[in-house]
Amino acid sequence: MATDPLAPGVWGVVATPFTESEGDLDLGSLSKLVAHYRRIGVTGLTVLGVFGEAARLSTAEKRAVLEVVVDSADLPVVVGASSTSSAPVIEEIELAADAVGDRLAGAMVQVNTADPDALVHQLRVVHAATGAGLVVQDYPLVSGVSISAADLAAVVEQVESVVAVKAEAPPTPPAIATLTSRSAIPVFGGLGGVGLLDELAAGASGAMTGFSFPEGLKACVDAWWEGGYQAALEAYLRYLPLVNFEAQARIGLAIRKEALRRRGLITDSGVRAPAASMPETLDKQLDRHLAAVENMES
Amino acid sequence: MATDPLAPGVWGVVATPFTESEGDLDLGSLSKLVAHYRRIGVTGLTVLGVFGEAARLSTAEKRAVLEVVVDSADLPVVVGASSTSSAPVIEEIELAADAVGDRLAGAMVQVNTADPDALVHQLRVVHAATGAGLVVQDYPLVSGVSISAADLAAVVEQVESVVAVKAEAPPTPPAIATLTSRSAIPVFGGLGGVGLLDELAAGASGAMTGFSFPEGLKACVDAWWEGGYQAALEAYLRYLPLVNFEAQARIGLAIRKEALRRRGLITDSGVRAPAASMPETLDKQLDRHLAAVENMES
Amino acid sequence: MATDPLAPGVWGVVATPFTESEGDLDLGSLSKLVAHYRRIGVTGLTVLGVFGEAARLSTAEKRAVLEVVVDSADLPVVVGASSTSSAPVIEEIELAADAVGDRLAGAMVQVNTADPDALVHQLRVVHAATGAGLVVQDYPLVSGVSISAADLAAVVEQVESVVAVKAEAPPTPPAIATLTSRSAIPVFGGLGGVGLLDELAAGASGAMTGFSFPEGLKACVDAWWEGGYQAALEAYLRYLPLVNFEAQARIGLAIRKEALRRRGLITDSGVRAPAASMPETLDKQLDRHLAAVENMES
Amino acid sequence: MATDPLAPGVWGVVATPFTESEGDLDLGSLSKLVAHYRRIGVTGLTVLGVFGEAARLSTAEKRAVLEVVVDSADLPVVVGASSTSSAPVIEEIELAADAVGDRLAGAMVQVNTADPDALVHQLRVVHAATGAGLVVQDYPLVSGVSISAADLAAVVEQVESVVAVKAEAPPTPPAIATLTSRSAIPVFGGLGGVGLLDELAAGASGAMTGFSFPEGLKACVDAWWEGGYQAALEAYLRYLPLVNFEAQARIGLAIRKEALRRRGLITDSGVRAPAASMPETLDKQLDRHLAAVENMES
Repeated sequence: MATDPLAPGVWGVVATPFTESEGDLDLGSLSKLVAHYRRIGVTGLTVLGVFGEAARLSTAEKRAVLEVVVDSADLPVVVGASSTSSAPVIEEIELAADAVGDRLAGAMVQVNTADPDALVHQLRVVHAATGAGLVVQDYPLVSGVSISAADLAAVVEQVESVVAVKAEAPPTPPAIATLTSRSAIPVFGGLGGVGLLDELAAGASGAMTGFSFPEGLKACVDAWWEGGYQAALEAYLRYLPLVNFEAQARIGLAIRKEALRRRGLITDSGVRAPAASMPETLDKQLDRHLAAVENMES
Repeated sequence: MATDPLAPGVWGVVATPFTESEGDLDLGSLSKLVAHYRRIGVTGLTVLGVFGEAARLSTAEKRAVLEVVVDSADLPVVVGASSTSSAPVIEEIELAADAVGDRLAGAMVQVNTADPDALVHQLRVVHAATGAGLVVQDYPLVSGVSISAADLAAVVEQVESVVAVKAEAPPTPPAIATLTSRSAIPVFGGLGGVGLLDELAAGASGAMTGFSFPEGLKACVDAWWEGGYQAALEAYLRYLPLVNFEAQARIGLAIRKEALRRRGLITDSGVRAPAASMPETLDKQLDRHLAAVENMES
Repeated sequence: MATDPLAPGVWGVVATPFTESEGDLDLGSLSKLVAHYRRIGVTGLTVLGVFGEAARLSTAEKRAVLEVVVDSADLPVVVGASSTSSAPVIEEIELAADAVGDRLAGAMVQVNTADPDALVHQLRVVHAATGAGLVVQDYPLVSGVSISAADLAAVVEQVESVVAVKAEAPPTPPAIATLTSRSAIPVFGGLGGVGLLDELAAGASGAMTGFSFPEGLKACVDAWWEGGYQAALEAYLRYLPLVNFEAQARIGLAIRKEALRRRGLITDSGVRAPAASMPETLDKQLDRHLAAVENMES
Repeated sequence: MATDPLAPGVWGVVATPFTESEGDLDLGSLSKLVAHYRRIGVTGLTVLGVFGEAARLSTAEKRAVLEVVVDSADLPVVVGASSTSSAPVIEEIELAADAVGDRLAGAMVQVNTADPDALVHQLRVVHAATGAGLVVQDYPLVSGVSISAADLAAVVEQVESVVAVKAEAPPTPPAIATLTSRSAIPVFGGLGGVGLLDELAAGASGAMTGFSFPEGLKACVDAWWEGGYQAALEAYLRYLPLVNFEAQARIGLAIRKEALRRRGLITDSGVRAPAASMPETLDKQLDRHLAAVENMES
């Protein structure tokens, strides 16, 4: 299995659509969504992450999601692990490897300890058992674990199988600056793109996050490479009010799915409990933001 | 499947022993530990809970644990679910039902939302899919969710399949008083027995927790029934310093496993990462506490 | 003392400048900063709030800050209380009333309990002792207390002396929608303006927050009143990358003070311990953002 | 001013009694309570700590408390600071020094940063301004700051004016073992005495905490010095059920004050908002615990 560093650019974090009536997987919508990602030219896909509601899927559902994603676009795939200990993580990666095969660009595992040595050990154990390249996700809001950027840099430098870091410990720009100054491993921003301009300025290789207009993330990253800060700013500005709107605590995923639905990319916008739904009071403002993005010239 | 209320008494929370060399399951020690629980006369066993490190086991390991437990003692078994959403919880309960069969006294699910209606809905969905009686665990430290005791009482009164509540939201004594005054569903204390006397006084039906001397929990509960507060106090006093010692934040499980090892009930005391090991500086004090428990007359 | 509802618009949250050498108050810079606020036409000033580092000032320093603010601009002033219990809060408000006199538009007190009755009682006690109009700040990150928007609306409806709510419990847009649909008391957004467009859409009367270009907050609010969403969006867009940059967790205040310094509005950018300084790695990006704001046509 | 290390033994953390009718200071009860501490032979007193509700007192009330304490017993006094930044901490210590005079054995300041250098700097600034010996309190539940025991040991070794550490970051026994192995500065346990036996075993010089029977803390510490673990265990056992009962999260202070009231040591048991009152459901159990302590022979 490949353990090459992840290619730079936008890795689209794929939502998992459900049918409204029963809350079952809506694999047709998933296929449509993936095709959209393919069409706009993302570098790769990230599946079964936090915003893919992986922790709310059964094993059979996870497999179904992976199979549809693989069938719907010939893109490299990063697959998230929901567990935080080696044994169940290895089990999840084995499922991913089985379903995704050669297209598995990396298995995303969370930082589960602030102890650098213990983290090095865990990453080595997981790689030894699976052969997978590892994307290390530093997301304290979900993991409950805080590690310093300096310690994390030292960890990923020691583990050859690490193919990327997903930096989601705010404030991310100085953390990414520390990581990229101490390690050549590519670092990707997340958190819905709220700080994308600053993450790119800090040395990020791109974005690995969800947003209802992933073309906005791509426009920003592409412009950064071609024209630097000013070009990226101009490309991203029209999306920023919607980025902030979608980044709202607790309800962000529901807003994003509803935005995807209104764009016609998925059929229903339901999220699985205990995730919160989008408050009705945001209904009109979402329409305004969507219209503004579509009407503004880039 | 039975959905009778759990019988009162002590439900022993079973640790999962690992071999020191590789960190693999040590099923021989598990069998020995379960036999000890059987010998001292506990009401039932709780397996794959937080202190059973269930979230650190693969599916195959969970099955192996359940099978050994069932084979080692003819006791009713409560099986914990590590997930917090319906789909994966149902998958875990199906595994438990398959392995434990008629001995499955309840499936333990965590409170995963502070919204009473949403919690009622989740419990109904899980029961409808599995037929299992449900033990509702209220453990904010692990779940991150806080529900008021009044709301929780209202929830469990509405869901017929609830067979018990495991109350682990401190302060537990007033919470248990609220629950038992508003509902006939049995409530069990946890948290290592630190507040067992007060939980019994508040109406708890017993204890469902881990402790290296589960005979102490049983002595306390039995004495409470026979002689009330004073009898329970006298029975429990000799254990209380060790109870407090084992209840230390983060390192409690490691201390408890080491105490079990020194008692000869398991072979090794290793915990799986990212759990913390017992600090060496506590080594001598653990010996003192164990000797004190054994030397004191009850 | 007046207990009129706060006037709509932008209430500038004033930073407290310190001298670089000793970390003493820099009252000259404070005066200059306040004059800038006056010049751009804010509705009023908010002094001794969280971003004014009030909790890091001695009583004498608080008094000095208030006196300079009052002398530097003839604007109504909201004064924050750092304590969370009635007795010390009353003491702080008495100091404020003494220093600010008739210009005291409100005393800002934090939500310090999730129990609506207890909060009503506290607000009444504080008002009875001081006569001050009260600005209720709902800021869980600082207070550690979470109250639902519905409960908070019920509280402020019951207490006549409440003159405004400062809503800083994310997600703020639905919270503000709930508050403004259930109460006529004006609600102001905070949190650095990250969600200002959405807060205005939810019924906010304006912004009460710090930002290095408060003219951006004012442009957005004024445009909202005159032209609605589209006008506000257009007015605010050029500021949004800097708004997000300044909103970074933990280091936001340091970034904002450095931005104020580079704009020439204060002499030094030091923050008092234990606040974090701005990481050097953000140095260049701050310059880019400042240049972008200044170069873009609104 | 003296900066001698604190003498070993029990430093009684003094509750602040209020009148039931108005919630005003009850200085008569305070005097009675202090006289009790004097009578049972504690080493010293700790006033205006977290359990003394210092953050809920006005400056005038703080001064009144200090004056009554000084007048009621000729014991050395540690005075707590509620603020966490140098300027207001210095102001609080100046008040304490003025009221307590030569009897000020130490000013207790909280760890307010995890950065060792910044903490050293803060302690030096505070000492330079006040001349006071410093008791460093490590209490993450209140401060929100976590520092490792190794870092804290290094800090206190560098600052000559530190006269003691109050270790309240669970698990405290290994933390105290680390501190006492790396530094000669005396370390005291807190947290209501739940882990006192283990803290003494780890090298603690005594206890600095509140408990309704401070004679129990003293009996335990004295016995430890004279007879070691076994003697201390025997002396402490009768108190331990009540210790655990009083250590309940959020309601512990209310329980303790009610216990003091029932013992006749204070007149009313009220706590100031937003502190929680003792739930009525605990009423009978508190009586049982008090009777058990009084009836048991030590």
